[in-house]
Amino acid sequence: MADGGNGFGSAAAKVDEARLWQRHVDMAKLGGTPKGGVRRLALDANDIAARRLLADWAKPYGWQVSMDAIGNLYIRRPGTDNDADPVLSGSHTDTQPSGGRFDGIYGVLAAFEAMEAIEAAGIRTRRPIETVVWTCEEGGARFPMGTMGSGVFVGRTPLADARAVADYDGVTVGEAVDAARAALPDLPERTFGFPIAAFVEAHIEQGPILEEKGLQIGVVTGIQGARRFRVEIEGADAHAGTTPRARRKDALSAAVAMVAALEKVFHDDPSDTVRFTVGRFVVTPNAPAVVPGHVAFTIDFRHPDDAVLTSLGDQVEPICQANRKGCAVTVHQTARGKPLTFLDLVPGAVDQAAKGLGLGHMRINSGAGHDAGPMQVAAPSGMIFVPCEHGISHAEAENATPADLAAGARVLAETLVTLAGR
Amino acid sequence: MADGGNGFGSAAAKVDEARLWQRHVDMAKLGGTPKGGVRRLALDANDIAARRLLADWAKPYGWQVSMDAIGNLYIRRPGTDNDADPVLSGSHTDTQPSGGRFDGIYGVLAAFEAMEAIEAAGIRTRRPIETVVWTCEEGGARFPMGTMGSGVFVGRTPLADARAVADYDGVTVGEAVDAARAALPDLPERTFGFPIAAFVEAHIEQGPILEEKGLQIGVVTGIQGARRFRVEIEGADAHAGTTPRARRKDALSAAVAMVAALEKVFHDDPSDTVRFTVGRFVVTPNAPAVVPGHVAFTIDFRHPDDAVLTSLGDQVEPICQANRKGCAVTVHQTARGKPLTFLDLVPGAVDQAAKGLGLGHMRINSGAGHDAGPMQVAAPSGMIFVPCEHGISHAEAENATPADLAAGARVLAETLVTLAGR
Repeated sequence: MADGGNGFGSAAAKVDEARLWQRHVDMAKLGGTPKGGVRRLALDANDIAARRLLADWAKPYGWQVSMDAIGNLYIRRPGTDNDADPVLSGSHTDTQPSGGRFDGIYGVLAAFEAMEAIEAAGIRTRRPIETVVWTCEEGGARFPMGTMGSGVFVGRTPLADARAVADYDGVTVGEAVDAARAALPDLPERTFGFPIAAFVEAHIEQGPILEEKGLQIGVVTGIQGARRFRVEIEGADAHAGTTPRARRKDALSAAVAMVAALEKVFHDDPSDTVRFTVGRFVVTPNAPAVVPGHVAFTIDFRHPDDAVLTSLGDQVEPICQANRKGCAVTVHQTARGKPLTFLDLVPGAVDQAAKGLGLGHMRINSGAGHDAGPMQVAAPSGMIFVPCEHGISHAEAENATPADLAAGARVLAETLVTLAGR
Repeated sequence: MADGGNGFGSAAAKVDEARLWQRHVDMAKLGGTPKGGVRRLALDANDIAARRLLADWAKPYGWQVSMDAIGNLYIRRPGTDNDADPVLSGSHTDTQPSGGRFDGIYGVLAAFEAMEAIEAAGIRTRRPIETVVWTCEEGGARFPMGTMGSGVFVGRTPLADARAVADYDGVTVGEAVDAARAALPDLPERTFGFPIAAFVEAHIEQGPILEEKGLQIGVVTGIQGARRFRVEIEGADAHAGTTPRARRKDALSAAVAMVAALEKVFHDDPSDTVRFTVGRFVVTPNAPAVVPGHVAFTIDFRHPDDAVLTSLGDQVEPICQANRKGCAVTVHQTARGKPLTFLDLVPGAVDQAAKGLGLGHMRINSGAGHDAGPMQVAAPSGMIFVPCEHGISHAEAENATPADLAAGARVLAETLVTLAGR
């Protein structure tokens, strides 16, 4: 349909699967690990090199590359109306300590590929389109603050607060950003928080649903909410061989009863939408012949519906208290994040693009957090998911196919053209 | 009844509660901790000093003190027939790393007090009576071998094997024993494994039963058997926010189901005789937002009846397999010790002594292991329990009353006279 003209599908047709894959290969060298993964911590030398590489790739096009005060990088393809708010697309270049080759970087490379494809198709959009790299999406990998760059952009986090955050070696974000700016002196300063028309983020799913259903495109409708709890159980250490059961205050036995009772309630979900995880479980003194006097465990509970987060989550404390078996128990809620539903502008455009291109797609909710979460505060936002192998991510084994990555870039290219207007 | 004569009760009448308590106070200074406990590891400087102190206390009586090749110490009160096999009584001077003031040392001091009381009563026994200190009863506190001295004495462990055992710093038992021998050059060498007529060990109960029943004397009838298991569960790490439950191989969820199912079976015991403990429980990677891919836990299961050890213990593996929830599980039995019932000679004598002295007493089984276990191989053996506060032991808070300690020593004195004969 697109051949010859520059109507719908013409940008998608110019997406170059081999070029996009090669860019993934090149990026994966920056912080590449022996096991085939990537360790590229926020604003470290490899993360700065990734920004350098992107700036170099932009040069032949004459697109302006700039950086703001938190290290977010912007590559701008002008529109016919450069006073119009731009459409932004991108993700992040930083990874988990033993991360993979796709989480984050795919959203950046897909955006850049989409801009190249739009350029190749000769399409002039009304709004400027910009590829963006948000600084430090992976909270805790180096700095203990996630979605930092997008959070500062939208004003969620004051710049000074973000700059004061220190990594495990005591280096602050401020020092790291200043080092990045010094390493890239040719990039002009950009003020963050400028008005934008929309934000679109491509990402691997980090879950198994698309792969299982044999679909290439997930039209992301929102990011589920989360509640986190820490449960502490105080019993009494006792001799395993001599202490009768009636005299025990066995913290592990109580913890087991609590988790079993919680699972009964949280697992009663035929739709398999609830995400309930006891991930950390620490026993003291943890010796084979001693009845454990103390157990602490965490609960990570996520759901797209805030009413469910409330009704199920509020049962955590009473269920724990009902199963304390003579021990003392305290339940702390350590975090609560409301579910986010994207305004229909971006998901609608993504849906139309996928349908128009004839790609298998479905509406899907994101289990993990992403920069598109904070960005929704600034402008209508949304995401495009592509499948990843066995749903594995945050691991060196993370994998995706060149064909799926290209399919996502095609949908993104058409979506950006739609959002930027002709 | 005993006044004036030296018949039944005359030895008990000479037990000196204040002297016995003062000896506990003096011994507790050797390795005393700021919190009122004792850290006196097998054959360390404090443990050698404890042997020195005992030898000094024996001097005024002219009793011969000797030491054997594994460091066991003997204090011999002669009999009228010194060719007759002696009656031995004692326990150990070593403690847990953060141990108490009574576990072990009470059995040594009660034996010495009993010998002093028999002496003061002017009783001449046919058999010699000896106070014994067994080396390294507390396995794992310094050297990873428990009831070592008694085990070598009865031939359970070859001397060379015991000497080769190393502590956490690489010092072997052989080196430590040689150092103890060098520090006590005046003590003649004793050959271990000589024939004995009987062995009696006094000990704090390390459980709450006597205290609860308001009785001063436990006539120990045996030591319960034990089986230990290590369960390893192999699931798969997964993202807590994105992985549907149906796709999870949650090792913690499986472990919780296993422990809950095991408790259902093992706790079905109205007599509260079964001792079932999951004491060690290790989760990997143990992060709040990661579905745990691996859990390892231990089971410590004890019971006085070997048939129950077999019938209940053999259910561990099938119950774990039935609750593996898609994970792989392996169950290893790491130890199996048969229950031990003391031959009636010593319990019968203890029972008669307690009854004759009008002390509240009951037959009781030992939950913990003791030197009397190995000793039963060499000769009829038995134990006398006295109450300890709240059943707490292997802890700095370990406590017992002067009156209860003296009551146990009185029963021991009469028991030794009975066993040694007049």
